[in-house]
Amino acid sequence: MNEKVQPKTLPGFMELLPNEQILFNEMKEKIQKTYEKFGFLPLNTPIVESAEVLLAKAGGETEKQIYRFNKGDSDLALRFDLTVPLAKYVAEYYPNLTFPFRRYQIGKVYRGEKAQRGRYREFYQCDVDIIGENELSLINDAEIPSIIYNTFKELGFDDFTISINNRKILNGLFEALELNNLSVQILRIIDKIDKIGKENVIKEIQELGVDSNKIDTIMNFISITGNIEETISALRELNIDNELFNLGVNELEEVASNIKLFGVPTENYKIDLTIARGLDYYTGTVYETFLNQYRQLGSVCSGGRYDNLSSYYTDKKMPGVGISIGLTRLFFQLTDNKIIEAGNRSISKVMIVSMADDFSKSIEIATQLRNNGINTQIYTDNAKIKNQFKYASRLNIPYVIVIGEDEIKNNTIALKNMETGEQVSVSLEEGIRIIKNA
Amino acid sequence: MNEKVQPKTLPGFMELLPNEQILFNEMKEKIQKTYEKFGFLPLNTPIVESAEVLLAKAGGETEKQIYRFNKGDSDLALRFDLTVPLAKYVAEYYPNLTFPFRRYQIGKVYRGEKAQRGRYREFYQCDVDIIGENELSLINDAEIPSIIYNTFKELGFDDFTISINNRKILNGLFEALELNNLSVQILRIIDKIDKIGKENVIKEIQELGVDSNKIDTIMNFISITGNIEETISALRELNIDNELFNLGVNELEEVASNIKLFGVPTENYKIDLTIARGLDYYTGTVYETFLNQYRQLGSVCSGGRYDNLSSYYTDKKMPGVGISIGLTRLFFQLTDNKIIEAGNRSISKVMIVSMADDFSKSIEIATQLRNNGINTQIYTDNAKIKNQFKYASRLNIPYVIVIGEDEIKNNTIALKNMETGEQVSVSLEEGIRIIKNA
Repeated sequence: MNEKVQPKTLPGFMELLPNEQILFNEMKEKIQKTYEKFGFLPLNTPIVESAEVLLAKAGGETEKQIYRFNKGDSDLALRFDLTVPLAKYVAEYYPNLTFPFRRYQIGKVYRGEKAQRGRYREFYQCDVDIIGENELSLINDAEIPSIIYNTFKELGFDDFTISINNRKILNGLFEALELNNLSVQILRIIDKIDKIGKENVIKEIQELGVDSNKIDTIMNFISITGNIEETISALRELNIDNELFNLGVNELEEVASNIKLFGVPTENYKIDLTIARGLDYYTGTVYETFLNQYRQLGSVCSGGRYDNLSSYYTDKKMPGVGISIGLTRLFFQLTDNKIIEAGNRSISKVMIVSMADDFSKSIEIATQLRNNGINTQIYTDNAKIKNQFKYASRLNIPYVIVIGEDEIKNNTIALKNMETGEQVSVSLEEGIRIIKNA
Repeated sequence: MNEKVQPKTLPGFMELLPNEQILFNEMKEKIQKTYEKFGFLPLNTPIVESAEVLLAKAGGETEKQIYRFNKGDSDLALRFDLTVPLAKYVAEYYPNLTFPFRRYQIGKVYRGEKAQRGRYREFYQCDVDIIGENELSLINDAEIPSIIYNTFKELGFDDFTISINNRKILNGLFEALELNNLSVQILRIIDKIDKIGKENVIKEIQELGVDSNKIDTIMNFISITGNIEETISALRELNIDNELFNLGVNELEEVASNIKLFGVPTENYKIDLTIARGLDYYTGTVYETFLNQYRQLGSVCSGGRYDNLSSYYTDKKMPGVGISIGLTRLFFQLTDNKIIEAGNRSISKVMIVSMADDFSKSIEIATQLRNNGINTQIYTDNAKIKNQFKYASRLNIPYVIVIGEDEIKNNTIALKNMETGEQVSVSLEEGIRIIKNA
């Protein structure tokens, strides 16, 4: 025989066993159904695009991570997110689209990151975005937390918090303090407050050469807590004389006060003045979502408002707001921490064991079960009955139907519940009823 | 403003408008649900694999068409089908799998073919395969047409024919005639019979240097017609003294006679002794499927039995049988020929128009509709009511709910059926009932 090639999946590429894949697909489908409940239209753009198109706005880290290659004369790349393809799509098909354009896309994206545990080079993003033409009402910003809330409820979570903020507040604050140039560094320092403590945050900001009055204002700002009303009041009481800041506070107030109307319980969202979500893309509302019992996982769903989606492709002004769930990473984290488990998931509800030499009856019964919407498989190998039951058990199939000479003669089925071990002799119709009601 | 990049999708990469995408997704979901009804487990292997793994068995055309590239030190490629990844998967995860292993995979594959109308470089394949360990019962071969039948019924077709054959018959015939070396060429000539006629087929085979006795046998063979029983009898009456041939006839008889038990009506399948499905891969039963009113589309679902799936990766012998639907191409053909149409498909069932300045009531109603499982969107822009209705109409949303001061005061909704134009003033509960019953 030939020399064998080692069958090996690349590091950083998730590949699941079947019962894990069933769980993954369940989650993906729940996300999709929730997105559709909010009236988002499906898109499925290509994974391969012209490098010029994909890299129109990229740079820095993204460009280094991108999978880029030639085929013939074409300079190609694999998409590294679903936002750039959306920007392209909206510019390309503009005359055929209706705005506000609500679309979801769930698909794989590619980033050649350093391989490490829990980091993927091929991973699913599940995005929704609402794109306006020239303008887009803030009601959309208030609707987003409701999408996040319904999605994570569907996924089986209760104890999570959607943090919202508005980038205009941060930008306005730094503008008022004449610290625009240092905003990136200061935000990075603030971001570490849970780890390094308040005193060290102050010290590190001092080291940037910021005077103590300004540090006081920053520290007052980030120590604001309380419910929505209290937070908004406290922000106003800072008396920051900056237009952008005050616009941000007004937007945040309007958005936050509408979230409740969208059915999100007050315990599932709050204002967090420190979240910023990167530094040049978002221009208004920003979102992060944390599972409260597993804060160490980081944000499991993030996004925000941007002024102009497609500026690299068109002069048309298209503001938008959206979120993304990194499903592959989330799935890894949740299963790795045993927060969810694939367990005994199966596709087939019934397996048929034929004890007669002739499979005719078994085939007929399988066909009738399938016609009744019951996922069914027939065991077709020539194996001992014990091994056939072992097979059903390994695949977590909840019911086995045994067809022997007696069953053929009496026109019955022997139906075994694989969980309880109980076996009954019933008509096929009765069997179908039992399986459907299970 | 910057120089703009032209937002352009690559040729050969399908990208759909939202209502077309809804139709595409409906078809994909129907295929998936049917595959699951037969107990196939889902897989989702990476699109990118090591070139060494993917090309273990490739060669010729495939190797030329493959998207292959380097990232760092890695020699990578995009998968060009779902069979090679399955072969890898089964060899790689062998100890974790249960055989017979029934899996489906629906995903994109990549071939850098010449760009031409209706030919895609990125396209969906929808595959099912049943993989045995050492052996696999022929009952599985008989089940495959039932999967094809149920799938195309689900997709809305009635008038289609599944053609089956067995490669052992063809191979045995050529062996008996000592024409193995010419079998490829002869089959290619036979394949053209509909176009060039019987006389020209004979002439072209003669030109290969085949003597007339043998040509008579070949022509007798390919002119066999009739139902299953008649065809099998006619094959036996050829008195071909070849073990492989006779084994093939026995297999074909067994498979064909079981298909009916799987619920496939006799008018939906037949034996076609001329189908071969490529020349080195399949070793037993082969399948092609034709939409009878659109035979020019070619086979819309094909596959067959193979002796050994993973021989390039492992010494374990794993015979299998499977089929594939090229969904992207099929979708193109069906829509291009207007056999199916995206029409007025929508995701949202209801759109809410707010005539009050305050959106609170509209938001509340949207939330309640969604909680009742009704896909709902709110029109949030500041637009004339006429334009809001136009928006709903462009998105094919079947119902519009108008909320004005009167509705808020009376706690009612104005529900408009966008198809009939009828508008009623009802309670929200009644509105939900109407929409759900529609």
